Amino acid sequence: MTTTPPPDFDRETAVHASAGEPGSYDTDLPGAWKVGQGINGGVLLATTARALSAELGTPRDDRPGHPDPLSVSAYYLSTATAGPAVIRTETVRRGNSLSHGGAELLQQEEPDAGPVARLRVLAAYGDLDDQAGDVLTAAKPPELAPVEQCIGSHAAPPEFRAESPMLTRADLRLDPSCVGWAVGAPSGRGVMKGWFRLPETRDPDPLLLLMAVDILPPASFELGMVGWAPTLELTAHVRARPAPGWLRVVHSTRNVAGGYMEEDAEIWDSADRLVAQSRQLARLPRQS
Amino acid sequence: MTTTPPPDFDRETAVHASAGEPGSYDTDLPGAWKVGQGINGGVLLATTARALSAELGTPRDDRPGHPDPLSVSAYYLSTATAGPAVIRTETVRRGNSLSHGGAELLQQEEPDAGPVARLRVLAAYGDLDDQAGDVLTAAKPPELAPVEQCIGSHAAPPEFRAESPMLTRADLRLDPSCVGWAVGAPSGRGVMKGWFRLPETRDPDPLLLLMAVDILPPASFELGMVGWAPTLELTAHVRARPAPGWLRVVHSTRNVAGGYMEEDAEIWDSADRLVAQSRQLARLPRQS
Repeated sequence: MTTTPPPDFDRETAVHASAGEPGSYDTDLPGAWKVGQGINGGVLLATTARALSAELGTPRDDRPGHPDPLSVSAYYLSTATAGPAVIRTETVRRGNSLSHGGAELLQQEEPDAGPVARLRVLAAYGDLDDQAGDVLTAAKPPELAPVEQCIGSHAAPPEFRAESPMLTRADLRLDPSCVGWAVGAPSGRGVMKGWFRLPETRDPDPLLLLMAVDILPPASFELGMVGWAPTLELTAHVRARPAPGWLRVVHSTRNVAGGYMEEDAEIWDSADRLVAQSRQLARLPRQS
Repeated sequence: MTTTPPPDFDRETAVHASAGEPGSYDTDLPGAWKVGQGINGGVLLATTARALSAELGTPRDDRPGHPDPLSVSAYYLSTATAGPAVIRTETVRRGNSLSHGGAELLQQEEPDAGPVARLRVLAAYGDLDDQAGDVLTAAKPPELAPVEQCIGSHAAPPEFRAESPMLTRADLRLDPSCVGWAVGAPSGRGVMKGWFRLPETRDPDPLLLLMAVDILPPASFELGMVGWAPTLELTAHVRARPAPGWLRVVHSTRNVAGGYMEEDAEIWDSADRLVAQSRQLARLPRQS
């Protein structure tokens, strides 16, 4: 009799150095993070960032290691599926305070054909512990209803949950002001916000922030455009190591035009610090 | 007797296919766009984007050409100087509606050493004429004083202009609300805005938009931090082909912390359309 192990984000996004291929890492993309047709884009980003962290975080040639993603830009090329994948990293430059790298996440689609690229990444890594402490932030934390008054994604209809296991994998609580779309009454404001944590006992870290920037339903849902809004490009800046506890996540869009929208995300930690910011360019859902 | 030819952005950012090296382009970085120690980051971005446009804009293998940058992410690696440079492009993927590419801009520093990378880029290209016409933008054009009431960068002190020829090369007019920094009285708001055009007769296009997202002084000037704020990463989204005439550019920052700031840029065209958005992560100037 086999038992299903409890969910574990670090195991789900683990990478292992490929035998005989320096700079390459094997991973197994987790079906638990499936959403619609593919694997959640934030999970792909966090997994790829983990491989770059292994590569750039190791000191080499008298240069210090830089384990933390400061800025990561990802271009999504094709839909990733649950199962084996390879991440090929490239060290672009090693400096004293920063290192730069590139990475490609690939999967085999046909046994006899070459692997297909899912994601390409460019990134700058550093050490968040080295950063100066001054904070002059003008941004304000989002106004959110208390966690217990927010709506959990496990409350989604069963057919929704069956297609998107991620809805029950993440502990996500949407603010009541942003769930009108679910009952056919979107607010008309391009804002989506809520609380997020992993259900297992695991505190947030920079990798989880990279996952969290794409964790909410698209802000376009609240504009009445309920449908898959595939990410073309997403850049995330990790600005500080997050404090333990719940994260607050806000997605918003201001420019819906030409078949695309920009979507900005902010992540605030339990100490009221703006710990990550991201912007993505997403294709609007096709309207029937 | 030699005469100096009139300024011409297209000549300054021209690229020529390198002999015998497919995908590589030669360029000559223009001293006219020097600002402080290096060449303006937006000019480097536009020049690199022009090489990718030459590469991805050419139809190949039954795939259409995609001449327009839709999203470009740039990581700045070292300070570029006036003079020869090479841009090596890589075609990542050619699709029906989008193509993806990467590029590296390099310069020779020492005659006997290998070239040094200045900039690495990942990008998605398409055709802006193919895009749907619907616009649901919630963003509003910036409030700017009329051009003739704004302050031209040619009014900068002579020692400033001598070090940064770009100040007289660009026709930039800052809103009076954003020039307090120049007289030691910054507003304390992290906003910089103004009008921009090229002094020669040349209408804006997607390449000029990529240049314009980094054309203003840093928003940190108006927070009292007057100094060079080098860009670590900049991603620009081109959202529409701009109408002829002046561009309005706004830079703003909300999160100044840990030695870095994010800086968002919006560019509005003369038809009141938000034609480009960008976000960069910049290192804060060192405070004395």
